Amino acid sequence: MANSEIHRASTTAPVNIAVVKYWGKRDANLNLPTNSSLSVTLAQSDLRTHTTASCSSTYTTDTLTLNSAPQSLSSPRTQACLRELRSLRAALEDSNPSLPKLSPLPLKIVSFNNFPTAAGLASSAAGFAALVRAIADLYALPQSPSSLSLIARQGSGSACRSLLGGFVGWNVGTAPDGSDSKAYEVAPAAHWAELRAIILVASAAKKSVSSTAGMQATVATSPLFRVRAAELVPARMGAMEEAIRRRDFEAFGALTMKESNNFHATCLDTEPPILYLNDTSRAAIRAAEGINKAAGKVVAAYTFDAGPNAVVYYVEGDTERVAGSFKRILANVDGWDGDRGWAVQGQGLEGAIEESTAEALKEGVSRVILTGVGEGPMKTERHLVDEKGEEVLNMEGS
Amino acid sequence: MANSEIHRASTTAPVNIAVVKYWGKRDANLNLPTNSSLSVTLAQSDLRTHTTASCSSTYTTDTLTLNSAPQSLSSPRTQACLRELRSLRAALEDSNPSLPKLSPLPLKIVSFNNFPTAAGLASSAAGFAALVRAIADLYALPQSPSSLSLIARQGSGSACRSLLGGFVGWNVGTAPDGSDSKAYEVAPAAHWAELRAIILVASAAKKSVSSTAGMQATVATSPLFRVRAAELVPARMGAMEEAIRRRDFEAFGALTMKESNNFHATCLDTEPPILYLNDTSRAAIRAAEGINKAAGKVVAAYTFDAGPNAVVYYVEGDTERVAGSFKRILANVDGWDGDRGWAVQGQGLEGAIEESTAEALKEGVSRVILTGVGEGPMKTERHLVDEKGEEVLNMEGS
Repeated sequence: MANSEIHRASTTAPVNIAVVKYWGKRDANLNLPTNSSLSVTLAQSDLRTHTTASCSSTYTTDTLTLNSAPQSLSSPRTQACLRELRSLRAALEDSNPSLPKLSPLPLKIVSFNNFPTAAGLASSAAGFAALVRAIADLYALPQSPSSLSLIARQGSGSACRSLLGGFVGWNVGTAPDGSDSKAYEVAPAAHWAELRAIILVASAAKKSVSSTAGMQATVATSPLFRVRAAELVPARMGAMEEAIRRRDFEAFGALTMKESNNFHATCLDTEPPILYLNDTSRAAIRAAEGINKAAGKVVAAYTFDAGPNAVVYYVEGDTERVAGSFKRILANVDGWDGDRGWAVQGQGLEGAIEESTAEALKEGVSRVILTGVGEGPMKTERHLVDEKGEEVLNMEGS
Repeated sequence: MANSEIHRASTTAPVNIAVVKYWGKRDANLNLPTNSSLSVTLAQSDLRTHTTASCSSTYTTDTLTLNSAPQSLSSPRTQACLRELRSLRAALEDSNPSLPKLSPLPLKIVSFNNFPTAAGLASSAAGFAALVRAIADLYALPQSPSSLSLIARQGSGSACRSLLGGFVGWNVGTAPDGSDSKAYEVAPAAHWAELRAIILVASAAKKSVSSTAGMQATVATSPLFRVRAAELVPARMGAMEEAIRRRDFEAFGALTMKESNNFHATCLDTEPPILYLNDTSRAAIRAAEGINKAAGKVVAAYTFDAGPNAVVYYVEGDTERVAGSFKRILANVDGWDGDRGWAVQGQGLEGAIEESTAEALKEGVSRVILTGVGEGPMKTERHLVDEKGEEVLNMEGS
């Protein structure tokens, strides 16, 4: 092995959108949550982070770029991820002296997101999942995705769920060291491959309160939050897993909406109040209610993370009723031109969405993203660092 | 006494804005609440209902007009008020045969609101308080305002609080017949006459969910609501009364804001969710937060009823810091031309309200109303029914 060899591994990792929300840490250093949560991993054809991890003695220090811009690696959270991954590699090297000594080498990590970061979509989950998965592959670590999720969790809580595909739970755990607070598979993507989502991206509204600061304020000041964490979420985890197991969209959808509203209620009950839902979000809620009323049952289920963008779940058979009803109004915005978009006729349910609601959506939605349930991180040979250790242009295309 | 005599009594009654919110009925027929509440009665120079109650054998049936438009008296709630008032009068007549027999005579009730009903300000409280007070005066009933509040409560829950001035509590009560669920004086207006309020009236947005329907949905579906009703409000009533007794604006203001947010959190936690706060409301919250930050303490305290209009309390000495900061931005809207408005310089606290917040307020606020704590219903000789029993034009002027 030449001393100047460049070791590389590349992966893509998905975004996930929770249907039982993570909000509140019981330990900020270890990123241990106050309650369990459950998410749907979204297809990487639509939204993904592509990351190459490389190491070489020719590098002088650890570096990270995201969309070609240098990023700091100095946060305690990122350092915790790197430290734990290096430690696992060092243990491998100790047990097998024939392995190359990668653990002491500087890392060069190069990442690209294929979605607009300005869109306010939570990219940290995909980002940390890709970082952990790529370094784990670089180091040929034998740990399962669930074990690796313990490391990703320390980078960004919800990142732990992006290490698996399909329907993913994150167990709150009880161990003080966090060793049982990790992601687990509720069902693979193939179990309910018909699950789709349309994301209504609200016009550039910068998130005013960071999730980390916001959730700790909620834990500290909201008297309603303790009921949510201690009583409601535990019961809802079981009900949500059951709905997914049975592919019961009405149960899944009703609980998804109720759960999103409950989470945002505790945000509003925070001192000072956290208001992520804006008039566009309100209109998305009204639109989904109108669609469900016209359909006579729950066919559209909205949920909102820590921002105004609506994610509306539906099943493939209801594409026209749900995505079609939105296309009827929002045909002029970006996002309908992909494979999934062309398949939406845009007839929708006539009259399902009231005129004032339609106006608010037209005014406030800047683009849509059509997606669906998808797989966990995937290895790729498309490296973002070339054989000489130089960052390459992202060759992904769209 | 001529048989054709027209008996008349007239009153004006105030609006009240709760600082501990009424939301949820434990008995819909008797309008019994799930929790106690507390409000500030607002000055009638700014907002009032003027009502004349008259009775005469020349009338053929009970009638009511509001702002010259005929209104139905057939609702069970209105009927309950009329029945109880007549019954009290009949008891008086039985005990004193020299009294004119008014209780069997048809009633003609004429009301005017001096505030724009389209503004979305809760007018039912002032309306029912004026109706009950005017008929009680017509009938020369000896009952105290607190006793009469039992009757007004059956018309519209929060109306019971408008029968008293100043700072008014409404006890949740425990009696099944509601006989202890009535208004009581926490402190008269003179106790803290410096308390002011600016109302930011949001541009014509019709209330989408009626209070009555909304609150019952909350009681039925919000798991967070029971904590509010059973635990939080009882503790907050005591703290709020104490803050008022001590004229401690910082304590009063902090609790007022927290309480409003808690109430709206349970609305959001309702199924389907009730969202009264819009982007204008959000901006009002941010503006108050900016003013308080610039002042270094709580000088502005927002609260929202079942709609998007912000009511911001402050004390007279902070007029410039609070109302002035709003005038700085909103000098072009209506509402600054009265006595109170002229006194506001409009310098405000420079930089207290962020540019984006200011823009949202300019876009969403259609007028301001400057008011303050005030007195309960007041008798007036300005009758809205003339001596011949005909409705007269409202002679109030502004």
